[in-house]
Amino acid sequence: MPLTSDIRGVVPIAPTPFHPDGRIDEVSLDRMTDFFGAAAVDGLTILGQLGEAGKLDHAEGLAVAKRVLGRTRLPVIVGVTAPGFAAMRALAREVMELGAAGVMIAPPNTLRTDDQVVGYYRTAAEAIGPDVPFVLQDYPLTFSVQMTPGVIRRIVSENPSCVMLKHEDWPGLEKISALRGFERDGSMRHISILVGNGGLFLDFETERGADGANTGYAFPEMLVDVVRLGRAGERDAAHDLFDAHLPYLRYEQQQGPLGLAVRKYVFMRRGIFSSDAQRKPSQALTAQAKAEVEYLLARLARIDARARLTG
Amino acid sequence: MPLTSDIRGVVPIAPTPFHPDGRIDEVSLDRMTDFFGAAAVDGLTILGQLGEAGKLDHAEGLAVAKRVLGRTRLPVIVGVTAPGFAAMRALAREVMELGAAGVMIAPPNTLRTDDQVVGYYRTAAEAIGPDVPFVLQDYPLTFSVQMTPGVIRRIVSENPSCVMLKHEDWPGLEKISALRGFERDGSMRHISILVGNGGLFLDFETERGADGANTGYAFPEMLVDVVRLGRAGERDAAHDLFDAHLPYLRYEQQQGPLGLAVRKYVFMRRGIFSSDAQRKPSQALTAQAKAEVEYLLARLARIDARARLTG
Amino acid sequence: MPLTSDIRGVVPIAPTPFHPDGRIDEVSLDRMTDFFGAAAVDGLTILGQLGEAGKLDHAEGLAVAKRVLGRTRLPVIVGVTAPGFAAMRALAREVMELGAAGVMIAPPNTLRTDDQVVGYYRTAAEAIGPDVPFVLQDYPLTFSVQMTPGVIRRIVSENPSCVMLKHEDWPGLEKISALRGFERDGSMRHISILVGNGGLFLDFETERGADGANTGYAFPEMLVDVVRLGRAGERDAAHDLFDAHLPYLRYEQQQGPLGLAVRKYVFMRRGIFSSDAQRKPSQALTAQAKAEVEYLLARLARIDARARLTG
Amino acid sequence: MPLTSDIRGVVPIAPTPFHPDGRIDEVSLDRMTDFFGAAAVDGLTILGQLGEAGKLDHAEGLAVAKRVLGRTRLPVIVGVTAPGFAAMRALAREVMELGAAGVMIAPPNTLRTDDQVVGYYRTAAEAIGPDVPFVLQDYPLTFSVQMTPGVIRRIVSENPSCVMLKHEDWPGLEKISALRGFERDGSMRHISILVGNGGLFLDFETERGADGANTGYAFPEMLVDVVRLGRAGERDAAHDLFDAHLPYLRYEQQQGPLGLAVRKYVFMRRGIFSSDAQRKPSQALTAQAKAEVEYLLARLARIDARARLTG
Repeated sequence: MPLTSDIRGVVPIAPTPFHPDGRIDEVSLDRMTDFFGAAAVDGLTILGQLGEAGKLDHAEGLAVAKRVLGRTRLPVIVGVTAPGFAAMRALAREVMELGAAGVMIAPPNTLRTDDQVVGYYRTAAEAIGPDVPFVLQDYPLTFSVQMTPGVIRRIVSENPSCVMLKHEDWPGLEKISALRGFERDGSMRHISILVGNGGLFLDFETERGADGANTGYAFPEMLVDVVRLGRAGERDAAHDLFDAHLPYLRYEQQQGPLGLAVRKYVFMRRGIFSSDAQRKPSQALTAQAKAEVEYLLARLARIDARARLTG
Repeated sequence: MPLTSDIRGVVPIAPTPFHPDGRIDEVSLDRMTDFFGAAAVDGLTILGQLGEAGKLDHAEGLAVAKRVLGRTRLPVIVGVTAPGFAAMRALAREVMELGAAGVMIAPPNTLRTDDQVVGYYRTAAEAIGPDVPFVLQDYPLTFSVQMTPGVIRRIVSENPSCVMLKHEDWPGLEKISALRGFERDGSMRHISILVGNGGLFLDFETERGADGANTGYAFPEMLVDVVRLGRAGERDAAHDLFDAHLPYLRYEQQQGPLGLAVRKYVFMRRGIFSSDAQRKPSQALTAQAKAEVEYLLARLARIDARARLTG
Repeated sequence: MPLTSDIRGVVPIAPTPFHPDGRIDEVSLDRMTDFFGAAAVDGLTILGQLGEAGKLDHAEGLAVAKRVLGRTRLPVIVGVTAPGFAAMRALAREVMELGAAGVMIAPPNTLRTDDQVVGYYRTAAEAIGPDVPFVLQDYPLTFSVQMTPGVIRRIVSENPSCVMLKHEDWPGLEKISALRGFERDGSMRHISILVGNGGLFLDFETERGADGANTGYAFPEMLVDVVRLGRAGERDAAHDLFDAHLPYLRYEQQQGPLGLAVRKYVFMRRGIFSSDAQRKPSQALTAQAKAEVEYLLARLARIDARARLTG
Repeated sequence: MPLTSDIRGVVPIAPTPFHPDGRIDEVSLDRMTDFFGAAAVDGLTILGQLGEAGKLDHAEGLAVAKRVLGRTRLPVIVGVTAPGFAAMRALAREVMELGAAGVMIAPPNTLRTDDQVVGYYRTAAEAIGPDVPFVLQDYPLTFSVQMTPGVIRRIVSENPSCVMLKHEDWPGLEKISALRGFERDGSMRHISILVGNGGLFLDFETERGADGANTGYAFPEMLVDVVRLGRAGERDAAHDLFDAHLPYLRYEQQQGPLGLAVRKYVFMRRGIFSSDAQRKPSQALTAQAKAEVEYLLARLARIDARARLTG
């Protein structure tokens, strides 16, 4: 089933498990896929930046996609960001053939003007083909590309296959309001907006009109609950749960390899991954950082038992 | 009393109050100065980026400095960042004559290599004169200049007048540990490290060796308490208070004019400022953003009564 | 006489002469002003980036403007780029009062999106006042701000006081053609386009529709001749003269302090400046670099006697 | 024969010929390979930025390498820059097996500090293996990564397999002098330095100690002559020939897709390529740009008959 603009809820961004020697850990990959299924998420994104996609070669990326797609019935979005359109097209066509629901495309960090950004997505959409639904990734902090609401509207209007925005601008609340305003005034068709940034503003983003989360927070169960509570109108309960997670969530949401290291460490401590290894360039957690994570999770576990680590 | 590397505790970064028509609001400036004194802080930084220093002309900047210095006995640090060394020197000499304790210097965002960064601070220290203590501002997210711990060590070693680091790298915990490690292994003399980033990691930064906070959080009383509790060894109590503030603190710690707008709004709601006006380029809070802030503060006030707004 | 969109010909960008100890060299400043007058240029730009404006404090900048304005009847454009609008306004009002013809405004290198660029110039034009004609400086290589032809059209359309473009995009020939196309199709009013980049493409830029040059090449006489020959339809002669200068021109057109060092050295060797000193941060020519310049000028002097150095 | 630090002379950077529909044009590829052989160059670099390597998928890149390696006995350097080390390693090992002499590695444009740059090349050298000689590409204008001479020395010292520097810093003359100074004072072993930037400073770069050129200028015959004349001590003759080419060379040396468009157009006009097509994102020459190129070449042909176009 191809991805459509109706997608909502929680679509975790999956890390890629490695053995300490750098090989892909397929057993952990299966375990993670099963874990996400059990967490009642609404889809799965693999081979994004968090998934260390850039550190895999083409064959490895395909193998990861094949294994995940073979193990879950969730819709799977595959990151196909590449230095050029030929490689992007090749990967996109292959993973769609394997059963992916859609692909995700991040902009190269050399884009500056509005026209450059719009032109890039026009060419990308043409390259992968009009039958491949794609997710627009708006993440200025990491990609150094700034898209105004007006630019996003241009991209959505030009490319019918753009069905979802992975929103991680920061600050970003007014951007969601602006985009939903475009829908209300009829100047832009509806697309799904799922938020990133580790969920750091999820509590308010859903109130602004986001449809859910598309991020790598190590406790997707919380994201699921917050989105559900928000939809049920239980605002205070949603914030209560979110606030309990925030001290750890904020710690996890440190940029770059450190944030990934925290997530992989917690996935290991939760029994999902056998190792927290990253491929190079990587950053290992120091003993003190691990102790800080353990301390935060112990505090969180007083309120949310799912944060209790047994190991 | 000139600033020394013994400075510790909480040194708020002060915003600059304006009337809605853009004139400096001197009554609010006085009220803010008194407020900080009552909050038992250890010093005050004015005319930083948060203080919209770049939007004041030379005479206005001097007038603000003069007024604050004439009203408080706290040590006052004055931002003297300027496009060139002549203007930096002029401002630094003038404010020191008026009684400032020291100055703060941010790097121009064109610096790239280690040598460029080190060379810049060498020339700056020479320009302001060896008798003027200065604060090194390390804020890659805003200034786009990355300083490794080794570069900071070079700057500290070359410039005896560098007495303090305003630390706002992100992630930054390991950087504090690295710098304190340099002190322990004797490769760098002691300097004060006060942290910024709105205090987003203050709870762990003090545990890593930071001496306190140098940031614009709208409730400096909390910063004072957390630093005090940490020093007293009351770790859980420090985290409890910090965590209660975190949902709002995270909201305030949005980059750029929005974060400043939130702080000015809360200063107005606390009765410190008469207006939350910014000079251009500025960003006003939408009604929804104001409601979000009010909601967060109402939730906070259940635990910390100082967040109760009466207006 | 205020600057209008009719300005054409050659408007040199003037360096600022210093004594070796860093003081402004007023005698050389006068000699330079007289030299430009004798070279039959059509105006003069002072206090630009090349003029080390950022290294002067406010009083020094004013003093330079006053001295030049008091010595020449040429229209003088003054750079008023500043970190904030208050300082920009102050300087603009003061120099206009002293008799400047207009001001030049470069964008801060933090601007990214089209709307940010347009918004910046809207606020700047408002700050200096609608009666002050301004020059839009488009120099991506140095300022890291990219303006499409469409963005320039928006700025020109919004701001009647924008009368001239200092064009130094690279590559930039098609940009000139696009802007002149806007004039022809009636979508943008006429503005003057004078080119920078040391004149590296002046030969073709005038053929594309540029009105002349606004750059710091050390032999403005050549720029004057090339513009004149081009207007007279003597294409080959224009290129012959230009090509003779190109080996040296290319050497001079090295970015940053080195290019400035070459220009100041040649101004000194031509007897215009008493010293080639720059204020810090600066770069001195090595002996080998000086020998290279001398060699290039000796070769040039075989064709253009004005390049003969007598010293 | 693996590449060593003895490589000198002219090693052109080869563009990749495409058919108008985007397919690789193998007949033109062969013709280009033969053309370079006939031009008496000393080697060949393929799949660099100029060769649109990022626009080829993995299989296409390999096919280009295989075809060129099968047709020439010149040493061939292959660009293996990739978003991650796994893909870099895969390509490097494959092309070395096919007979490449070495590989070229450009830095990702996210590197900032000295340690980041040095660390990147350490990991890259380890990834491709110590038996694969590599070329360090120093091209700040395009890659936004600044390497001081000291950083280059660290890279050379740490990695015995680094045998050559593709030098295209700008300005860059003093950098060559600094690196050769390191060799003289014994602090760095000898490496080959071949220069890029279209050869814009080749005349002086060889005098500063460069061993030749590694660039895509459309008349490699000139580069060969200038290097030969320089070595023979015929300084004036070298400059005479160089200066004759400079008006066109400067035109060709426009950054980005335009410069490439000029080169492909001239390769087509010289009968080497059947088409000047680029893959997207691309930029086609306007009629006026083509006329400018033709005019420049006609002027050049008066002095260097090799620039005469017969078509």
